Amino acid sequence: MSNQEAGSQLYVAILAGGVGTRLWPGSRSGRPKQFSDLTGSGSSLIQATVDRLDGVASPEQIVIVTGAQYGSLISQQLPFLAESQMILEPSGRNTAPAVGLAALYARRRNPNAILASLHSDHVIADTPAFQNALCCAAAVAKDGYIVTLGILPTSAHTGFGYIERGKALAMAPNDCTLPVYTVNRFLEKPSQEVAEEFFLGGAHYWNAGIFVARADRFLAEYKRQQPALYAALEAIDALEDRDLSGEVRRTSFVDAWHEVPSISIDHGIMERAADVAVIPLDAGWNDVGSWDALDEVLPATQRGNLVVRGKLIDLDSSNNIVSSDRALVALIGVHDMVVVDTGDAVLIGRKEEMQRVREIVDRLAEEGFSNLL
Amino acid sequence: MSNQEAGSQLYVAILAGGVGTRLWPGSRSGRPKQFSDLTGSGSSLIQATVDRLDGVASPEQIVIVTGAQYGSLISQQLPFLAESQMILEPSGRNTAPAVGLAALYARRRNPNAILASLHSDHVIADTPAFQNALCCAAAVAKDGYIVTLGILPTSAHTGFGYIERGKALAMAPNDCTLPVYTVNRFLEKPSQEVAEEFFLGGAHYWNAGIFVARADRFLAEYKRQQPALYAALEAIDALEDRDLSGEVRRTSFVDAWHEVPSISIDHGIMERAADVAVIPLDAGWNDVGSWDALDEVLPATQRGNLVVRGKLIDLDSSNNIVSSDRALVALIGVHDMVVVDTGDAVLIGRKEEMQRVREIVDRLAEEGFSNLL
Repeated sequence: MSNQEAGSQLYVAILAGGVGTRLWPGSRSGRPKQFSDLTGSGSSLIQATVDRLDGVASPEQIVIVTGAQYGSLISQQLPFLAESQMILEPSGRNTAPAVGLAALYARRRNPNAILASLHSDHVIADTPAFQNALCCAAAVAKDGYIVTLGILPTSAHTGFGYIERGKALAMAPNDCTLPVYTVNRFLEKPSQEVAEEFFLGGAHYWNAGIFVARADRFLAEYKRQQPALYAALEAIDALEDRDLSGEVRRTSFVDAWHEVPSISIDHGIMERAADVAVIPLDAGWNDVGSWDALDEVLPATQRGNLVVRGKLIDLDSSNNIVSSDRALVALIGVHDMVVVDTGDAVLIGRKEEMQRVREIVDRLAEEGFSNLL
Repeated sequence: MSNQEAGSQLYVAILAGGVGTRLWPGSRSGRPKQFSDLTGSGSSLIQATVDRLDGVASPEQIVIVTGAQYGSLISQQLPFLAESQMILEPSGRNTAPAVGLAALYARRRNPNAILASLHSDHVIADTPAFQNALCCAAAVAKDGYIVTLGILPTSAHTGFGYIERGKALAMAPNDCTLPVYTVNRFLEKPSQEVAEEFFLGGAHYWNAGIFVARADRFLAEYKRQQPALYAALEAIDALEDRDLSGEVRRTSFVDAWHEVPSISIDHGIMERAADVAVIPLDAGWNDVGSWDALDEVLPATQRGNLVVRGKLIDLDSSNNIVSSDRALVALIGVHDMVVVDTGDAVLIGRKEEMQRVREIVDRLAEEGFSNLL
């Protein structure tokens, strides 16, 4: 299937409802990670996610699923999207409802639509490799599979779920140059020991939450496995059939949303879905889960330090990550640290402890610094 | 001599021309250390220096010697001083010209004036002990001595010059409760070995640059030891005898200033002065020469960290000095560091390397960041 053919029926859902707590103070409740230019590229992560689809899916075939409070950020950062291309959830209900709404959205527009669900806050360095895998997945999905892109592990990481591949599928379309496997099972975050086995074994991929299937295929799984969720989502979709004012439509959405359970697509759908396939993705994927991940995404720029943005003056300082929106940063004898200055907050911490940023955010909430969250 | 008697003839010169480079970014060329509230007390160091004189010298008997560019800062921070109480040097010429101008100023107002010369950027914790020593020095000075207050060493410091005391003076005035010694000699910054001998020996004091003498006694030493300097300063003082407009007076000052050599009072006058006495000062003196000195001046305020100003959230972080004008500071796993945030610049460095802040400032100058100097 060529890109153009894929473009004719491939819809892409971009999930943008996360809050990115561990990327504080760059990520805020009012402007989470995906709307920030964390990598200093000049684009926010969600803008880069949309740009990465250029040639695979036209802007009209994109739908953003996010929290209602982020509607104006979407309009600012992706002004070429129509308002109808945003699904604004009244509150966060994890990923299964978000993908389900996007599947209903796509099916309503094209009964044969294929839907790819992506996250808005990941970095993928090699766009051609990603597009190749996505087109391959769409071709396999056309034949009825739910396809996931499995990230080729680059380390024995314990912070991700894993996908265990099964046998190779013979039916890979002709123009798909990547191998396609059945999926044996989805696995929770492993112990270090198990992660090392996975890494050496070569039959496991990181689960990046990228799923591609026919919209009606997704929805059949929802109906079978999560009938209550399916019914609630269908009720929301059915609002489209009625001639409602914007205000009434929104109120009805909020009312119906109360019936929607919070559940992830991994647990709620994928773990017990039929006919799941995996295509390996080797494209410099990174979920930028915490500040120290920037070392994997970007090269050092100044004597062993990574200056994401801003100006650094350093004396005897190495292996630091520095991002400053406003102030010049001067370091003397500082090593292996992350320094993030957003003007109203400065975070300084050891790289290996960057998971603990979450605790800082908790403390700020406890102490009433809501303006800094 | 009571405070009131001292007040009747004691003039106090406060030298405020320094730039405090090692206290960057809290100290700036446009607002040096002495005009900053480095200790978070609510007062700048020069305001605290003036407050410390309350009861010993009335505001009318204070004269500030500083750079012309700092005149407006003096007016802002010490609004009760008359314009005539500021001597605004066209450029920095070290301490001998500054003290000489102040001595001429005092003698012009009272031929019997006693002049105490203090620095504007030192911290003294125990004001009563300081005032007692100052009054004692003024009483000894009345009898013709040049008196210096020698700081009782609290460590074998190699960053200060030292004063070696001689024999005890029998002539200490009745109401002076402190010992008074002759001065054998002024010594340069010593080696570590020598500093340790001094510290254990008990006959050496730190030279804090605090000198007290009759104005005419100072001027006699200037005339004898530095005749060219004396002549240049006298020419400047003589401008007062002429009926000049402010503009002409200033231009004449600048012209005459070209003849003034740059020389310190220590090297130029004190080392070879006759009849020098020393009175020990044990009053929590600190010159706050670099950021790490704040540990000696202020107690830790938050789990072993010293928060000078601003809000700190810390996880597993200890023994840091934090001063933030604008941003909240969050630390994770950070120890023995200084963190200073002034909004436009953030300095992060190991405490023991804080002398190197000077190198940061040099680099900023080289790279053209004049707005941050």
